[in-house]
Order: sequence, then structure tokens, then C-alpha cells
Amino acid sequence: METNSWSGAANVGFSVPAKVSHETKLESTLVNIAGVEVGGNDIIVIAGPCAVENQEQLFSTARGVRKYGAHILRGGAFKPRSSPYSFQGLGEEGLKLLSSIREETGMPVVTEIMDTRQVDLVCQYTDILQVGSRNMQNYPLLKEVGHTKKPVLLKRGMMATLEEFLLAAEYILSQGNENVILCERGIRTFETSTRNTLDLSAVPMLKRLTHLPVIVDPSHGTGIRWMVPAMAKAAIAAGADGLIMEVHYRPDEALCDGQQSLDLDLFARLMADLKKIAFAVDRNISEPIHS
Amino acid sequence: METNSWSGAANVGFSVPAKVSHETKLESTLVNIAGVEVGGNDIIVIAGPCAVENQEQLFSTARGVRKYGAHILRGGAFKPRSSPYSFQGLGEEGLKLLSSIREETGMPVVTEIMDTRQVDLVCQYTDILQVGSRNMQNYPLLKEVGHTKKPVLLKRGMMATLEEFLLAAEYILSQGNENVILCERGIRTFETSTRNTLDLSAVPMLKRLTHLPVIVDPSHGTGIRWMVPAMAKAAIAAGADGLIMEVHYRPDEALCDGQQSLDLDLFARLMADLKKIAFAVDRNISEPIHS
Amino acid sequence: METNSWSGAANVGFSVPAKVSHETKLESTLVNIAGVEVGGNDIIVIAGPCAVENQEQLFSTARGVRKYGAHILRGGAFKPRSSPYSFQGLGEEGLKLLSSIREETGMPVVTEIMDTRQVDLVCQYTDILQVGSRNMQNYPLLKEVGHTKKPVLLKRGMMATLEEFLLAAEYILSQGNENVILCERGIRTFETSTRNTLDLSAVPMLKRLTHLPVIVDPSHGTGIRWMVPAMAKAAIAAGADGLIMEVHYRPDEALCDGQQSLDLDLFARLMADLKKIAFAVDRNISEPIHS
Amino acid sequence: METNSWSGAANVGFSVPAKVSHETKLESTLVNIAGVEVGGNDIIVIAGPCAVENQEQLFSTARGVRKYGAHILRGGAFKPRSSPYSFQGLGEEGLKLLSSIREETGMPVVTEIMDTRQVDLVCQYTDILQVGSRNMQNYPLLKEVGHTKKPVLLKRGMMATLEEFLLAAEYILSQGNENVILCERGIRTFETSTRNTLDLSAVPMLKRLTHLPVIVDPSHGTGIRWMVPAMAKAAIAAGADGLIMEVHYRPDEALCDGQQSLDLDLFARLMADLKKIAFAVDRNISEPIHS
Repeated sequence: METNSWSGAANVGFSVPAKVSHETKLESTLVNIAGVEVGGNDIIVIAGPCAVENQEQLFSTARGVRKYGAHILRGGAFKPRSSPYSFQGLGEEGLKLLSSIREETGMPVVTEIMDTRQVDLVCQYTDILQVGSRNMQNYPLLKEVGHTKKPVLLKRGMMATLEEFLLAAEYILSQGNENVILCERGIRTFETSTRNTLDLSAVPMLKRLTHLPVIVDPSHGTGIRWMVPAMAKAAIAAGADGLIMEVHYRPDEALCDGQQSLDLDLFARLMADLKKIAFAVDRNISEPIHS
Repeated sequence: METNSWSGAANVGFSVPAKVSHETKLESTLVNIAGVEVGGNDIIVIAGPCAVENQEQLFSTARGVRKYGAHILRGGAFKPRSSPYSFQGLGEEGLKLLSSIREETGMPVVTEIMDTRQVDLVCQYTDILQVGSRNMQNYPLLKEVGHTKKPVLLKRGMMATLEEFLLAAEYILSQGNENVILCERGIRTFETSTRNTLDLSAVPMLKRLTHLPVIVDPSHGTGIRWMVPAMAKAAIAAGADGLIMEVHYRPDEALCDGQQSLDLDLFARLMADLKKIAFAVDRNISEPIHS
Repeated sequence: METNSWSGAANVGFSVPAKVSHETKLESTLVNIAGVEVGGNDIIVIAGPCAVENQEQLFSTARGVRKYGAHILRGGAFKPRSSPYSFQGLGEEGLKLLSSIREETGMPVVTEIMDTRQVDLVCQYTDILQVGSRNMQNYPLLKEVGHTKKPVLLKRGMMATLEEFLLAAEYILSQGNENVILCERGIRTFETSTRNTLDLSAVPMLKRLTHLPVIVDPSHGTGIRWMVPAMAKAAIAAGADGLIMEVHYRPDEALCDGQQSLDLDLFARLMADLKKIAFAVDRNISEPIHS
Repeated sequence: METNSWSGAANVGFSVPAKVSHETKLESTLVNIAGVEVGGNDIIVIAGPCAVENQEQLFSTARGVRKYGAHILRGGAFKPRSSPYSFQGLGEEGLKLLSSIREETGMPVVTEIMDTRQVDLVCQYTDILQVGSRNMQNYPLLKEVGHTKKPVLLKRGMMATLEEFLLAAEYILSQGNENVILCERGIRTFETSTRNTLDLSAVPMLKRLTHLPVIVDPSHGTGIRWMVPAMAKAAIAAGADGLIMEVHYRPDEALCDGQQSLDLDLFARLMADLKKIAFAVDRNISEPIHS
């Protein structure tokens, strides 16, 4: 099967860094997140709101995505916003809410970390540390998350070449933490009708160059709700190991990124469609293990 | 089904030109090419060599892709090459070879046209006129192909926004020819590991904005043979109405684009995989009608 | 002086095509346009309206730019417009107007050519054939203008690499016409506050790689009237051999590109400023020869 | 004079953030760095090595640039490197060397800061805190430098729009620190012959939109030593308030960015040329105040 058998080095005009390279580690890395394995035959779905806004919003959304088959919950407590005047997240209060709903639903939780000083705090409440696009080359942060053993979800910078992306991952691995999941989330191009241009060719390329799992974020990749299903399906068809998607129980009231968030109905329908695509590429989307 | 039911206008920051707009024509346009219909439930596969090189190369490749299920044959007689010293195509001799193999196999033929002075000549030998990326904004050429009634395969410029792409199509429709097939073939970005960045989000976006069929070229979109299957599958999952792919009976001897051409074995295997993906999105890849 | 003494080959990751290369021709090429020499110590200013609209507009603008020191008149008779519904130019009538005012003022004239079938016609009325950005890789057109001996103003494609730009020029030189002037006019990037991003680093790079003259178009390069003076000055400081700028006697009434056109007052003031910059880089802006 | 008289709001398709906007503060901000004023009629030159490597390298380079007229010394102690295996800088030892040579020469010092935890340390040794391109959207870092009163040199992200650049500056001003100098340092485009594409149109645009000083880094902007002089001159002609350039006493032995560093001879000649350009645009390059 494609995801577990490596097809040999590819000539891409740069040398793949040593620790992330598939040439130095032939088997695919499986990242284990509280029992959920990313990088194997099973495709993993991460879903949840852009930002944790309050208990009702988080809990309703989390229960919804849990019900329709998401494996991992996402939710931002510290939000990187272009403007200093936009909602910046609930901070530690948001982390506590994530922790509560994790306990209730059994879903592991991923949240973004932006500051080296927050690593210890965020590690207490979360199962995966997300390093966002804007911080892909924040080297002190990469080193700091590399010192923990926590799984890290590393998002591609919106301006980063694949070589730079792999070098950023190498920063983490070089500190001793191999639990890194790469995430394509759209790059910046001249096109203005979408928020970003989702670069799905990054998926087969990265799968060939590195042993690390590769997932796709069609929410940020398009910025447009009705485009998410088509691009989520395409990501699986291209060989992605998983998806991370923004879902909100009431997208029109969202404090952040509502226009790209699925509601629960759309999410439920998409999960059914994704299973068909997974089957067509000899992959599988399992029921969540904690029921 | 997604391809035949329009979901309403989308706010994309520009107004869709009148004649290509899905708002002015709710039903999808079916382009009929000598009996092969593009834009309906059936997914159409166009395959063949980058350039017509000689009789043996063209005929062997054409018979091969025919055997494994391609619906339409591609082959360049006039080649747009970045360097004046590269192989420029066989010209009219190439057109005659395309015409012969069309007669033998019954496959309709598409070939690129670059010069307003060639329109009459190329129309004699071919079923679809391809306007290539570099000529997407060659307005005299667009008008000239608009004056014919021939189906036109219009490739997106490698630097063109979707708005400009639709305006280029509008040039053709405004002359009275509605038989236009749009083709996403990769855009230029900062990424250097692939030849272009295949913009699959163009597929759902264009399908929403226009009634015209939309196909994808994963060969130019990636420039790398081993990436073509993954991106071809992703294109179908994203909603494309067809694919155009470079296939060569001996890619390593190709005069042009050999590194991105599939050989016949890879093409055969890919066709089998594509059928599974098509099924997963409620589409179909039929056996070619002329057997 | 920098412009006439070549400083040796530069390692740019590609090989410069043979006929345009500065390595094969050490002296700079001087393109002589009815007595006006481009590529020497004198900096040449080309000015005039985007499009020829009518006699009064053309003649008033031409007399104005002539008075304030422009050496060559620009004016479009065939306009490449993104939309088929925009003003497409006056065609041959525009060429005749250009020819009349050329006779009156003694200024040589440059106009854009878009179609291989127009070459003979346009050659009758004009001193320089402009190949526009959208046609930089229109190879039949490049070959056709290469067959004439007319000077050619070749604009860089808005997403063309410098390698592709030089290869496009090579198409013209390979047909026997060495009278080619290269023009940087802005490239397409992600930035949206300007129409294009004027790439002034193209100036020293091209001057090093090729013996051909290099000029800059700050009007299309910015798309914004008030930015033109700053970028025109910067272009000269960067080593450009000339400028091409849009000037209109009544910019607010222009049928095309009014927002980026200087009025005659701004043009007059800019010419004075440009002389100071030219002096600072040991160049010169002469009074027009035909008075 | 252009730099002190504002010409009114420009329509750029976004609203300029409140505190950085020229509309809310008509006079230009002068940032005072230990007596050196940036943003007035005088053009300021910042020069020095990419990284502090050792005492001899730093001191020889600093004395050299001081001698030839640089006003401020640059030198990196913490280096953001794409690869974890590249030289990462001397850290605090580098800061101490910078502090010593500052004492000797009287030149203020700028150095990059990458981690919120380093702010206090770096403030002890330096006169300007540089926030590098990769950290332009590192919001915790922006807030932290905003809490100090130190002047901040904020470099544009290599794929940041001007709107995002201004929003990043707003983060700093919103914390109470108005001493921000903006620096254009090249953006990422498809062009590969230069390291980046120096976007000089950012200079007049930013000068119009904001009251903050704007300087240019032609070293990173081009990545090529022989291109630096042409682009430095162009930057001044475009209206920049200053330059930051990499100079090394022995560029071929540099541990970092040697290929884009000027040697002292080139720097001396460039300073002479820059004075002529400054004069041509009614600006001035003064002798350093501390002799």
C-alpha cells in the first residue's frame, strides 16, 4: 500500500534533512495520540471550532463532531490574529474548557501554541501542540516543542517551500521529538477568489520525501465553507493521512473564521462521503475508539 | 448530483462575465466532440504524447491509450517552447498523422493552435482546438477560434486569476462559440520542487461560477511522472469533468516532457484506480464509444 | 561607465541564450529609432496615452510630452483587454493618427502589435513594434517581428522569469533582428495594493546578462499615478536605459488606464527630477533631437 | 519636502490601522536612536556583518563601516537559520562584543531578537531591537517589544502584504511603543535568479500610508553582492529614509550570507554614490555624529 511502502528517493533539487528523510527511515512514522494513530492505514479526522469561545459553543460543537466520527478535537485558546484588535482567544480559560470536554468525550485535543513561555502550561491541558503557519520558522518555539515528547502538529507556512517545511520539522526532530505531523494548509499565490491556494501536490511529494504523517487543512486552505467538502475529498484521494477542519455548531455566530467553518450537518454528510473516497484509495476511516 | 445542479451565486469579489456565468445558464453545458460528451456525469480522459514525433511513436501510444480506456487523443503538432532551439513540432505533417490515427482508432483528436493564421488548417484535421496557457490572453486567437464552431480546450494561463480565465473564455463565447472546455493545468508559485502548483481548488470554484466543463492536466500541473496518479485521483475527487494527461509509449525517449509522461503500464493502472474514485463521487468513466 | 562596460558572467542558475548573452557580445547594443539611440549613455523617455482615443486626445498629449522632453511617443491602436466588452482600440484609424502626429512632431512612435496578420500593416505606420506582456511567449508573433528589421519593444510577461524573458528575446534575435529593447513592467505577486510589483532588480540583472537595452514601465508597474514619479526615479537609479510612461492630457477622461496616467503637469515636473537622478548616476537625459 | 508633508489618504483597498496611519498623525515620526534620528531629511545607513562571528571580524568590520560613514552598526547574535545544523549565532557572547564595539566607536547597535524570553537580555546590550521577517507575525514577540520603549526595526515578512505589515507594526504601537522603523527586505516571488524580489514600490506606498520611517535592505532583497549598489541607489531614489546593508571585512570567509555582503571597499564607494543620489532627491547623508 502506498502509504507504507516507500518508492525511493526523488530528485527535487534539494537534499531532504537527515532525520525527517524517508531515505534514512524506510517505515512510515506512526504518531500515537492517546491511542489514536496518525500515519497508518486509517485516515484521522480532526475537527472543532477555530477558537474556543465559551463552554456552550465548545461543548456543543465537540459533542457534535464526536457523534459524526471525528477522532480528535481542535480548538484555539491562543489565537494568532493579523490585527491586535481582533479576538485573541480565551487563553488558559480556553485550555481548561478543552480539558473538560476531553474528559467527557474521550477525544484527544489539539491547540495552538505561540510563545515559548507557554509550553509547560499548554502541555498540561492538551494532547497535541500545534505550531501554526506564522510560526513555522519560529525557531525558538520549534526547539522548545522539540524538547517535549508531545506530538506536534506543524503547519506549513503560507510562504514556505517544501524544503523549508521539512527543515522546520527537522528542528523538532533534532531535539529528540519524532512525533511530528505535517499539515498542508494552503499557500499564498496571486489568486484572490480563495483565501489561500491549497497545494495538494504537497501531499504526495511530502509522503515521498519524509516518513512523517501528512494531513491537510481544507478550511484555511480555501477559506470558504462550500469548498471544504470538495477539497477534503481531493486531499484523501491525493494520499493524505488525515484532515483538520473547522466545524462550529453555529458558524454564522463564530467569533473567528465562521465563513470557512462547516456546521454539524455539513460535517456529518462530509464524513459519509469521505469514507467512500477512503475506500476508493484502499484506506479506512474508523469509528472513534473511545465511545 | 453536484455537476448538474447549480448551488447559487458565490461571492468571489468579481462579477462573472455574462455568457460564461452559471447564473445566466443554470444547466451545465455539454460539449459534444464527435459523440464524446464532456460536462455530464461521465468523466472523460484525454491522453497521448506531448508532441507528435513520428508515426510509430504516435500510433503505438494512441493504440495503447485507446486500449486502456482513453476517450480522446492528444498530440501536439505545433509546440510552444520556451527556447527557439527546442523541437518545435512537426507542423502539418503532425496534423496528418493525427488524422490517420483518428481514422484508425475512432478517437477524436485535440491539438494546440498558436497562430491565427493556422485556424483553417488545424480545423481540417482536428476535433478540438487547444488554446495553450501562454496564449490564454492572446485575444486575436481567442476571437478566431470563437468564430469557428469547433470545441475549444482553453488552458488556464500559468499566471491567470480565475477572473481572467473566465474573461478569456468569454472572448470565445462572445463570438458565438459556446463549446469551451476549461482546463486547470497548474499555476506558478514560489515552490520549486514541482514544475507548477496544480490548483485543484479551481475545480469546485469554476464549477460553481460557470456552466462550462472543467478538466485538469496533472501532467503539466506537476511536471513529475510519479505524481500524476495521485493528482489525477484528487482532481476527480474535487469534481473535475475530465483529465488530460501525457502518455508516451517510451517516455525516456520523448522529445518533449518525457519526465512527466506516463508509460502505458502506469496509464492502464491509473485508469483502473480512477474508476474507483469516480464511483466514490457518483461519477462514471465509461468505455470509449468507438470500439 | 556601468552601462558600457560589462562586468563578467554571473551565476544565476541558468544559461543565458547565445544571441542575447553579454558574454558573446561585450559591447552594449544601441538600438537606433529614427535617430534616437536607446542603450547608450543617454536615457530615453517614451511617453503618451495608453490608447489612441481620438485626434484631439492624441495630438494634445503628444504635443505636451514633446514639449516637456519625451523622445518617443507611445499610443495603443490595438488594445489587449481582459474583457471582450472593454474598449479594444481604434485599429488602423489609430495607426493613421499616430502617423500624422509623428510627422508633425518628429517623434518616433511605438505601438503594440498582437496578431501575426497585422505585422505588415503596423510596420507601415510605426517606428517600434511593441510585443506586450500577454504575448511575451506568443512564439509565432516573436518570430514574425524577428523577420522584420524594425526595433522591437519586448515587455516582460507579468509572471515570466528573467530566463524566459531572455529566451523570448532570443526568439526575435534568432530570426535576424537584433534591435530589441527589453522592458520591465511589473510582475504579479500576492500584493494587492499595487496593480503589479515593479521588479527593479530585473534592471541590473538584465544589464549584466544581456547586451540589449533595458527600460522600465512604472505606469503598469504600479498602476497608480502618484507612485509613478518615485518609481521612475528609482528605475533610473537602478541603471535603466529609459522609461515608458503613460501620459494623458486629461487622465480622468481616459478610456483606458486613466488612474495610472500622469497629466502633463506631473510629467513636466517629473522630467526635471529625472534629470537630477540621471546626473547622479553619470547618465544624461538629452533634449529631443527633432525640435 | 516629500518625507515631511503628507499627500492625503490613498485608496488601497484596506483601512490603515489607527495608530500607524498617516491620516491620524500628519507629521512624520522621527525615531531617535542614541542621537541618530531616522525619518527626517537625513538618510541613515545601517551596516555591519550578518552575524557576529568573533571579536576580530566584528571589530574590523565595525571600524571600517564607521570610517566610511555608517551611522548604526548591525550584527546578529541570535540567527534564524532555515536549517538546525547551520551556525546559530554566538548568543550572549555576541551581544557583549556588540556592546564593546559600540562603546569604542560610539555607533548605536541593532540586533535581532527571536524569543520573548530574550527581551530583557537583548535590551541591556542593544539600541534597536530587530524583529526579523520570519517573526513579523510572531504576535507574542511583537507585544513584548511593544512593552519596552526601545526603538524596533520591524522587517516585512517575505510574503506579507503591506496591510499585514502595517498590522504587525500596529501590534507594537498598540502596546505603547511608537519607535518603530519599517524595513522592506524583499518578498518571495516565482523569480529564482535573485534570493528575493526587492519590492521598492513598498517605499512610496508605506510613506504615504504611515507616519513611520521606512528603510530598505538591499542585501537580503537581492542576495547578490554586485546587485546591492544598484538597488541601494534605487531605494534612496524611491524615497527610503535609510538602508540596512550587510558588510563584512572578508565576505568570502563569512559564516553566513557572505555572497550578499559588501566588502569595505565596495561599501566606501557605494557611500559616495549614495550621497549623489540623496542630493538628487533633496535628501542628505550626514557624517556620523560621534567621531
